[in-house]
Amino acid sequence: MTSAFPPIADSTASPEVCAVFDDIKKTRDTDYINNFWRVLANDPATLKRVWGGLKEVMAPGALDPLVKEMLYLAVSITNGCAYCSHSHAVAAKGRGMTAEMFSELMAIVGMANQTNKLADGYRVPVDERFENLF
Amino acid sequence: MTSAFPPIADSTASPEVCAVFDDIKKTRDTDYINNFWRVLANDPATLKRVWGGLKEVMAPGALDPLVKEMLYLAVSITNGCAYCSHSHAVAAKGRGMTAEMFSELMAIVGMANQTNKLADGYRVPVDERFENLF
Amino acid sequence: MTSAFPPIADSTASPEVCAVFDDIKKTRDTDYINNFWRVLANDPATLKRVWGGLKEVMAPGALDPLVKEMLYLAVSITNGCAYCSHSHAVAAKGRGMTAEMFSELMAIVGMANQTNKLADGYRVPVDERFENLF
Amino acid sequence: MTSAFPPIADSTASPEVCAVFDDIKKTRDTDYINNFWRVLANDPATLKRVWGGLKEVMAPGALDPLVKEMLYLAVSITNGCAYCSHSHAVAAKGRGMTAEMFSELMAIVGMANQTNKLADGYRVPVDERFENLF
Amino acid sequence: MTSAFPPIADSTASPEVCAVFDDIKKTRDTDYINNFWRVLANDPATLKRVWGGLKEVMAPGALDPLVKEMLYLAVSITNGCAYCSHSHAVAAKGRGMTAEMFSELMAIVGMANQTNKLADGYRVPVDERFENLF
Amino acid sequence: MTSAFPPIADSTASPEVCAVFDDIKKTRDTDYINNFWRVLANDPATLKRVWGGLKEVMAPGALDPLVKEMLYLAVSITNGCAYCSHSHAVAAKGRGMTAEMFSELMAIVGMANQTNKLADGYRVPVDERFENLF
Repeated sequence: MTSAFPPIADSTASPEVCAVFDDIKKTRDTDYINNFWRVLANDPATLKRVWGGLKEVMAPGALDPLVKEMLYLAVSITNGCAYCSHSHAVAAKGRGMTAEMFSELMAIVGMANQTNKLADGYRVPVDERFENLF
Repeated sequence: MTSAFPPIADSTASPEVCAVFDDIKKTRDTDYINNFWRVLANDPATLKRVWGGLKEVMAPGALDPLVKEMLYLAVSITNGCAYCSHSHAVAAKGRGMTAEMFSELMAIVGMANQTNKLADGYRVPVDERFENLF
Repeated sequence: MTSAFPPIADSTASPEVCAVFDDIKKTRDTDYINNFWRVLANDPATLKRVWGGLKEVMAPGALDPLVKEMLYLAVSITNGCAYCSHSHAVAAKGRGMTAEMFSELMAIVGMANQTNKLADGYRVPVDERFENLF
Repeated sequence: MTSAFPPIADSTASPEVCAVFDDIKKTRDTDYINNFWRVLANDPATLKRVWGGLKEVMAPGALDPLVKEMLYLAVSITNGCAYCSHSHAVAAKGRGMTAEMFSELMAIVGMANQTNKLADGYRVPVDERFENLF
Repeated sequence: MTSAFPPIADSTASPEVCAVFDDIKKTRDTDYINNFWRVLANDPATLKRVWGGLKEVMAPGALDPLVKEMLYLAVSITNGCAYCSHSHAVAAKGRGMTAEMFSELMAIVGMANQTNKLADGYRVPVDERFENLF
Repeated sequence: MTSAFPPIADSTASPEVCAVFDDIKKTRDTDYINNFWRVLANDPATLKRVWGGLKEVMAPGALDPLVKEMLYLAVSITNGCAYCSHSHAVAAKGRGMTAEMFSELMAIVGMANQTNKLADGYRVPVDERFENLF
């Protein structure tokens, strides 16, 4: 599979792209820029916007960083996105996800996908007590 | 919307169905059986199998119960399952999910759905370092 | 929910639309035209094309009509399409689907949605013996 | 693509895993354990639960085994799961699915995916007569 | 259906939320803030980030605004998102989408969903000449 | 990956298949028949029906051909269909889609997938003014 655009190497990156790459390196405390950002860099505005959004969303908050990565991973697997399933699995592992935790996450992803369709296909009406959340 | 089968009331439940309902009540420490199980009870074998599986998957393990409920919720929202999104949001709240935590979860669900499609559409090749997980 | 276009009544249907409605009635041996076709009739070319295709696909062949309706239903549930899940469930019932058969269909839909995600998330490689089909 | 966990060989399988593998071999009257179960075997609890559920769901019942495999296949294709589409196509063929039957199944899968989106996009209201099923 | 959070009225909006609402009104030359933004306003950071991103993405560029709205609509229908299908259909109409154009869009959405599954299910290999894009 | 059926070469095509291949070549002003049609040709009825439908849907109309290809592409990416994402990206490029236009299309696909889930997960009620379309 060839990417829609070639990945942008550091040597050919524009100053605008370099600034984002530098922020990724600094934020993640790494020298490695993964393919997602290098391919996205063909559209600097999208690179900047998506990185900025991701950085904000994944920053420490009410949920701890490992939980955030596992939520990201569960969604990516549900959507069948091979790239994100690979990258966020490794990211979650880097934040402490053990094999046992990954197996439990997978069991939940599988179970939820099963009951989602059972609820839909049986047309189960939402219980009154589930109507209001906050 | 009418469910495919009418919900089974306690008064008309077979002993097999009652046994599952009792286990749900005991496991969840509640007197309330939600519509999902009452509709599923029209097929006692499926009721028993799905409840047994769910109970096992959601039991305490390497992940804490709140994280499990939030993973379930994130998958259900991604699949657009209204019933499960309602029921698991309430379940997660019951286990301690605050409005702030829900908002962070939603931000991640939205972001992951965005980058999943960007990775797919740009056909980003999986980085070699993401190939192996465990 | 209001449909994107109002349903077309017999009294206001153009000759082109009437011809399709007549063919639906004749093919299905009924006087009832369901909402799907009446809304689609706002675009006569699409009405004609989609009805023609559906008629061909659902005609008796190597698979019997009940099996065809159940396949249609399983796909519609998987896609979360409420309209098609309702209409094809009734159509399948009209061709002989019992409550027991529907329950088995639902169990398979649920199970397949579960294992589809397990296979994806665990990135299970396709066995060599599954590579060739026909 | 590397699987998330390495497949478990017979020689390194725990007694718990061996028991499931033996049941798969006996139930399917084969000596071959496919990759799905060997990768799942890294989490023996999930292996046992999912195999137990699948065995129950796919057992002879009101629907014949070939119909069950074709329903499984139609769902797997709709979800874009390459592994399950491959394995259940071969399983269906083993139960008698001919090339002609597969082609009819594919025609239905395609048609249903088309009309599912037409019904959604045109927001077709569910006909009153489709409201009740059983 | 009750929203997860109540919509935020102008009278109770914080200055941060008001600033976004004002920018929406100015950018869209309207006094109306639709429910999506009012519900999102319960999480001001997400409101600001998502609105900022949407404003950038939908701004005039190489594609004209009507084409952008129709792309948005086609994706929303494919995902079965009722809210976005409604809001972006009206937005597209406001930019000049006629009934005829909407019907053509729907025909394409339906056809693409059909052939997407045919290509997947028949496992059609990508032609060499389709490998490289830019 | 091996296709479910081998692609049909010109030399082994039946007269019925040849007639469709000839129409594809004439309509598209090319000598090249891509793999999708060659694999589909194993089921001549489906080949004829799907090609006939696609030809009608993609013919010049109220929307210009480039817009039609981009809508097709946006849907295919959203569905994660690798084959159609490749083939329709090349087709769109052949009709004038520049790298800049593709990047804008991708930004919209990503954004729509994000807000689709935000609207679903926050259960945003459809505004009254969005209820009626045509």
